[in-house]
Amino acid sequence: MRRVLIIGGGGMVGQKLAHRLSVEGLDGDTDIEVTLFDMAYPEGGAPAAERIVGQLGNFADIDALVAARYDVIFHLAAIVSGESESDFQKGWLINGAAFLHFGMKLEEEHRVSGGAYVPRVVFTSSIAVFGPPFPDQIPDDQPLTPQTSYGAQKACAELMMNDLGRRGIVEAVSIRLPTIVVRPGKPNLAASSFFSGIIREPLNGQEAILPVDESVRHWHASPRAAVGFLIHAAGLDTALLGDNRALSMPGVSCTVAEQIESLRAAAGDKAVALIRHEPNETIQRIVGGWARDFDPARALALGFRADADFDAIVRAYIEDYLTD
Amino acid sequence: MRRVLIIGGGGMVGQKLAHRLSVEGLDGDTDIEVTLFDMAYPEGGAPAAERIVGQLGNFADIDALVAARYDVIFHLAAIVSGESESDFQKGWLINGAAFLHFGMKLEEEHRVSGGAYVPRVVFTSSIAVFGPPFPDQIPDDQPLTPQTSYGAQKACAELMMNDLGRRGIVEAVSIRLPTIVVRPGKPNLAASSFFSGIIREPLNGQEAILPVDESVRHWHASPRAAVGFLIHAAGLDTALLGDNRALSMPGVSCTVAEQIESLRAAAGDKAVALIRHEPNETIQRIVGGWARDFDPARALALGFRADADFDAIVRAYIEDYLTD
Repeated sequence: MRRVLIIGGGGMVGQKLAHRLSVEGLDGDTDIEVTLFDMAYPEGGAPAAERIVGQLGNFADIDALVAARYDVIFHLAAIVSGESESDFQKGWLINGAAFLHFGMKLEEEHRVSGGAYVPRVVFTSSIAVFGPPFPDQIPDDQPLTPQTSYGAQKACAELMMNDLGRRGIVEAVSIRLPTIVVRPGKPNLAASSFFSGIIREPLNGQEAILPVDESVRHWHASPRAAVGFLIHAAGLDTALLGDNRALSMPGVSCTVAEQIESLRAAAGDKAVALIRHEPNETIQRIVGGWARDFDPARALALGFRADADFDAIVRAYIEDYLTD
Repeated sequence: MRRVLIIGGGGMVGQKLAHRLSVEGLDGDTDIEVTLFDMAYPEGGAPAAERIVGQLGNFADIDALVAARYDVIFHLAAIVSGESESDFQKGWLINGAAFLHFGMKLEEEHRVSGGAYVPRVVFTSSIAVFGPPFPDQIPDDQPLTPQTSYGAQKACAELMMNDLGRRGIVEAVSIRLPTIVVRPGKPNLAASSFFSGIIREPLNGQEAILPVDESVRHWHASPRAAVGFLIHAAGLDTALLGDNRALSMPGVSCTVAEQIESLRAAAGDKAVALIRHEPNETIQRIVGGWARDFDPARALALGFRADADFDAIVRAYIEDYLTD
């Protein structure tokens, strides 16, 4: 039986992953046991053998997790981009320092086991590791030049993952997720939160605020596709990755205008009329520094698959969250 | 009066910097007070107002240093490349985790001061942040792709420095030093130690071991040039750096054969005869993964100056360490 740990298992993607693992297992293998770690869990959430409540800022919690020697570890927990920018300490502690501690503890456990303990670790990095100026399509060899604290922290974590992988301490895979839309639930502190809001709120009969121009182009994947990336990464032959364990995931590149047309196709003009344009210079500036399109050739060759288009992303939200 | 702190002030470069500051001041300003921080100091070492004994692995020591609000901080302390590769924990603790803690404490001090405390911080990074395959000359926009733990740790520190600089928390300058030769004293744990040994030992009438082929090409600067880089970095207008605060320093690119010819020019065939070829596959492999030449256009435009050639590097050693 394989023991699977999801760090950040109480979050939106973590819960969706836990649910899918409970239905399908991992790569067809249903002989697994799933443990979640997070600060809190939604009521009536995804099934799991155990739900551990803890904090990554408390390094003893990390030590205990790693000492339990799970076979597969998904590390999804992070302080989001907006909060990492507004709270320097919190972002660098959780996304930076705690991740280095996690890596160091993994090495200790590997060493103490005489080299026998080599878990699969799948880490969710971000396209925020890249900064402008961008080419039209960001290639796989785009340099790490983050322009936000969040991006710098994710880049540090990627460097640790590459070192763990190069040394054979873990089977390391870092996946850089596109901006996930349409997120269910409420807006969060990420500057990208409106990308979900302008679809989700109108589909639920509520007003949404659009703080940027409709010409803004960005890079997206559905929560369903994100979970697919994670499961695929857990089964990947890491020998194919070489020394660079970080992969930019495939996604859908489209403008806000195109997203609104997908909303119109799914729910009509009445839904679109619920979007209120209220330009916000801060968000416009932050989003203006984000990547717009990628050429994720490596990930595609390794079998990662994105949503077909933005219509499919809207459909995934309706099917997964609005259909009982 | 400006208060200057040298973290790693007991080491070879730190001592040389302290000595030069005591003679010349900082950019012509002799109204300075120099404090050193290190685990230990050489007997009869460079003058300083205070010599603090501490450990970066003890984060309380870092807190105390930062709380003392020095105007200029040189951060030179590191676990060297060879030891970072052999001791994963030690390298990631000192070069990685402790550096993130240093940055976080600097932000706290800046915030507590109401934004008034913005020290100049000069950090010695390394060309080990780059990994193969290399172009013939490594340009300033070469991506961060370290292939050693040491290089990954230095890259993490550069990312923290860039974030501190971007946010205006410190006046941040990271300088990537070439391999420093000719180091005085004894061999150290760096895989590059022999580059100094093959010049230093024969000049002192002793045998030296050359573990690699004479065709090996590498990138060098003298300790004297390194101190010059540090002092120049401390006076630099950081507005000229933009968001990328890391600069590859100029240096001398030459082969081991050329280095041996410089030794011959300075000390004759008898000195050269003291070099014993004893190939070491491990060192050959490590050094084979190192950069051979750079095009440090940015640093040159900013006024950083290297040694003229390898003859000048040998001369600097003789003048600084063999002439009484």
